[in-house]
Amino acid sequence: MNIGIVGIGLIGGSIALDLKANGHKMYGADLNPTHCEKALDLEIVDEILNLPALAKECQVIFVSVPVKVTSMVISELLDHISWKSIVVDTGSTKGSICSDLNNHKKRSRFVASHPLAGTEFSGPTAALKGLYRGKKNIICEEEKSDPDAVEVTIQLFREMGMTNLFMNPVDHDKHMAYVSHLSHVSAFMLGSTVLDIEQDEKQIFNLASTGFQSTVRLAKSSPETWSNIFADNQENVSKALESYIVHLQRFKEAIDQKDEDAMKDMIRKSNEIKRALNGMKYNVVKLS
Amino acid sequence: MNIGIVGIGLIGGSIALDLKANGHKMYGADLNPTHCEKALDLEIVDEILNLPALAKECQVIFVSVPVKVTSMVISELLDHISWKSIVVDTGSTKGSICSDLNNHKKRSRFVASHPLAGTEFSGPTAALKGLYRGKKNIICEEEKSDPDAVEVTIQLFREMGMTNLFMNPVDHDKHMAYVSHLSHVSAFMLGSTVLDIEQDEKQIFNLASTGFQSTVRLAKSSPETWSNIFADNQENVSKALESYIVHLQRFKEAIDQKDEDAMKDMIRKSNEIKRALNGMKYNVVKLS
Repeated sequence: MNIGIVGIGLIGGSIALDLKANGHKMYGADLNPTHCEKALDLEIVDEILNLPALAKECQVIFVSVPVKVTSMVISELLDHISWKSIVVDTGSTKGSICSDLNNHKKRSRFVASHPLAGTEFSGPTAALKGLYRGKKNIICEEEKSDPDAVEVTIQLFREMGMTNLFMNPVDHDKHMAYVSHLSHVSAFMLGSTVLDIEQDEKQIFNLASTGFQSTVRLAKSSPETWSNIFADNQENVSKALESYIVHLQRFKEAIDQKDEDAMKDMIRKSNEIKRALNGMKYNVVKLS
Repeated sequence: MNIGIVGIGLIGGSIALDLKANGHKMYGADLNPTHCEKALDLEIVDEILNLPALAKECQVIFVSVPVKVTSMVISELLDHISWKSIVVDTGSTKGSICSDLNNHKKRSRFVASHPLAGTEFSGPTAALKGLYRGKKNIICEEEKSDPDAVEVTIQLFREMGMTNLFMNPVDHDKHMAYVSHLSHVSAFMLGSTVLDIEQDEKQIFNLASTGFQSTVRLAKSSPETWSNIFADNQENVSKALESYIVHLQRFKEAIDQKDEDAMKDMIRKSNEIKRALNGMKYNVVKLS
């Protein structure tokens, strides 16, 4: 199959690497000429084309550009493709993208997707073969896409080793605010707080354990990508963040009172995340 | 050498595994009889002894018990050991332990240490061979320990693959509040916030990316260990947490105003943690 990738960064580049390895011919497009060169050098794509040429050449086109410009790029691609081709996005928010494209005359050739995978790095050099293996892909508003478009999309994500799930865009954005966007804010501000206090980088380097590195890992993520996502999902992320701050304030009170019982109760409750992550039943321990 | 481990959990058990592999004879003591049995079953230690017997038998004794009871246990051991033996602790805070033991008549046979390593698991089954390899060990108030005691301690931590650094207890506790204790609070409360909202564990399991898992990993840590540490280092942790909350509130304002430029500036600043973690020079980007 001829497959297009618009935006050859971490997400798009990793898709290209997997599908290329499966024998598909990969065409790339990226506004950044350095990304295009790099993508050819690294053999992430076979050829670079402009959008109209790519729209003509490819049966399926993945769009992996910042959330803010995603619906604009999809709209332009839909204008150019035949009624047999498919456009799939990979945006981290789904509400605004789905709503922007709701009335496009070729809406049914678009499949709204969000493959849940990534690293803290960005650009074509961050592309990784196998990034998606064992991970989940969310498809939204599948009822608005033609059945053949959904089927081909599912098949391609399966080729990358992904399981596909269906969810409506409103639920998607609400859930993602908690299990993805909030953890990015939490890591970004942890990084800033430590940098503000620890003016001496050597101390951070010397004292940073694997625990700190794990918690702060996402603080290395792209400013452009994430400011876009937070603005797009403002209402949900703001609510999640508000609740997080309240939890932190409550814990701070227990620390200030050296109330170890209260701390233990709260920690025990948070320990339950283990079971949720293991996909097992858990009992939320009541706060006393 | 005959070496004792008091508290055969993640930290003490991992020390025992490494030193045993190096040919030392390992004696263990633990208040929890199940831990003792498990430690023998798993061949973490060669023999279980009570404290006075262990104090008599061993040239070096590592104390890896909760921070709250550490100085009490060390004090009792110092009372029993000969002037040739050495007691080393592994506590995550150093101020109160050093101050509690300041006037002990055998203070010079004690070496205050903090090997910076761990996982989110606890108990003897969590003990890992090689846990300490490539990591840092902090020694505090080395001037109050006899030179031979410091030398032997350094040598043993080196055998585990660690680099040894010196720091005073006040600085240690201040730095640890930021690079270790704060990230635990941040992860605990992230876990709780998500659990409070996402009543449906299946959604967490389905949607949790590796990013979320990394950020929330420390939320699996022991309530007993950490409530102890937070209470002991209350002043520093409280300050760190206050600063963290202020940073989060500032970021929330930017989100609420959908001010992507402000978000980008703050994220770019937090990105600098990369260089600190790499031990390279970094320039703090000024907030506009």
